[in-house]
Amino acid sequence: MIEVVALDGDDTLWHSEHLFVDTQDRFRSLVRPHVDVDDAALDARLLDVERRNLPLFGYGVKAFTLSLVETAIEITDGRIPGRDLQAVLDLGKVLMDHPVELLDGVREAVDELTDRYRVMVITKGDLLHQETKVARSGLAELFWRVEIVSEKDETTYQRILDRHRIDPSTFVMVGNSVRSDVLPVLAIGGRAIHVPYAVTWALEHAEPDPDVHDFPVLDGLRALPAAIAAMHDEP
Amino acid sequence: MIEVVALDGDDTLWHSEHLFVDTQDRFRSLVRPHVDVDDAALDARLLDVERRNLPLFGYGVKAFTLSLVETAIEITDGRIPGRDLQAVLDLGKVLMDHPVELLDGVREAVDELTDRYRVMVITKGDLLHQETKVARSGLAELFWRVEIVSEKDETTYQRILDRHRIDPSTFVMVGNSVRSDVLPVLAIGGRAIHVPYAVTWALEHAEPDPDVHDFPVLDGLRALPAAIAAMHDEP
Repeated sequence: MIEVVALDGDDTLWHSEHLFVDTQDRFRSLVRPHVDVDDAALDARLLDVERRNLPLFGYGVKAFTLSLVETAIEITDGRIPGRDLQAVLDLGKVLMDHPVELLDGVREAVDELTDRYRVMVITKGDLLHQETKVARSGLAELFWRVEIVSEKDETTYQRILDRHRIDPSTFVMVGNSVRSDVLPVLAIGGRAIHVPYAVTWALEHAEPDPDVHDFPVLDGLRALPAAIAAMHDEP
Repeated sequence: MIEVVALDGDDTLWHSEHLFVDTQDRFRSLVRPHVDVDDAALDARLLDVERRNLPLFGYGVKAFTLSLVETAIEITDGRIPGRDLQAVLDLGKVLMDHPVELLDGVREAVDELTDRYRVMVITKGDLLHQETKVARSGLAELFWRVEIVSEKDETTYQRILDRHRIDPSTFVMVGNSVRSDVLPVLAIGGRAIHVPYAVTWALEHAEPDPDVHDFPVLDGLRALPAAIAAMHDEP
């Protein structure tokens, strides 16, 4: 029987990735006047820089902004002028201060879930930024716990379950990332539900093996209460 | 009776602020060739930028690095070339990847404390960076809990105490910052011990009122077990 429902934040409760995509569009417009490179090559370079910086910087908008600045300098061989780099920094600030827009049906679903389960958030990224998003979501008082983590792997999920004395068989994780929200939870004996978002960041891509990994896939959070209720009828 | 001893991380368990001071020296050397400004004015401008960015960026090395880049651009009116800005970014990376050097007597003190109390860490800054420092400290297995927070105010301490069901009268916080480690803990009914570090960041300065705030001040963690034992003999 499910007792605890954990929800991812970015692109599960509120929109996020499309804001990064918009920011990257503006970033290209700032950089392109200073270097002869096409969009695909610029995007690829940014992804390389992000991947290289990930072990040191971790996830979140501050890490992204630092990687934007670094990419802009590298790809223009330092020719991008200071005022354009300030504009790159400002893109990061706009992203960090952006209003939180809930996905469709989220409030109703969370509200309904709290009647039957303990509902928590497990999200990764900048600590302060994620806290701010939870606060701005208007949902904070509905959550039993909010866990902001630096990585969503088996070790992290096991630590959270241990800390709150949650039996994995009573735990379901719900999120848009197969890599971060589904596979590591299945690996430690929990359940998971995948709710894909329109866009997925390249560093979040994962290919589940359909012979091994069995998890429901939903169109949105509106269908979540029924999907969790259906888990109670399984053998 | 004290049951839980909470320790701050930066400049209480391991050296930190002097690394920021060194980084700021190198930062000045990178910026000075491009603008006619003395060290004091450059430091003051950086502090202004950090203060302005604090509500959005929070604490930690990523926030500091973003503020360094912004200050370098602003104060040179964008004249600082890209290669020097890359060098500024690299200063941040070196800071983030720096080995953890424990302060004198820390290992022995923590080891001794764990015989009698539950010992936890409460530290603020970048999530991943603080986790990395705890892991690199070699002390991780001695800690009952590690709490990485975005701000150390009364609300944060109250939340931590509630979460772990700690009675404030059994809790003592130990750290180098009167503003972050001492005053908010006294305000919620806990105890606090101040262990000053050689340098204090300007944004951490606080002036306690000696008529209101009563807390022990120690030279270092070596004296901590005795100082906590002495609390047991107080009325």
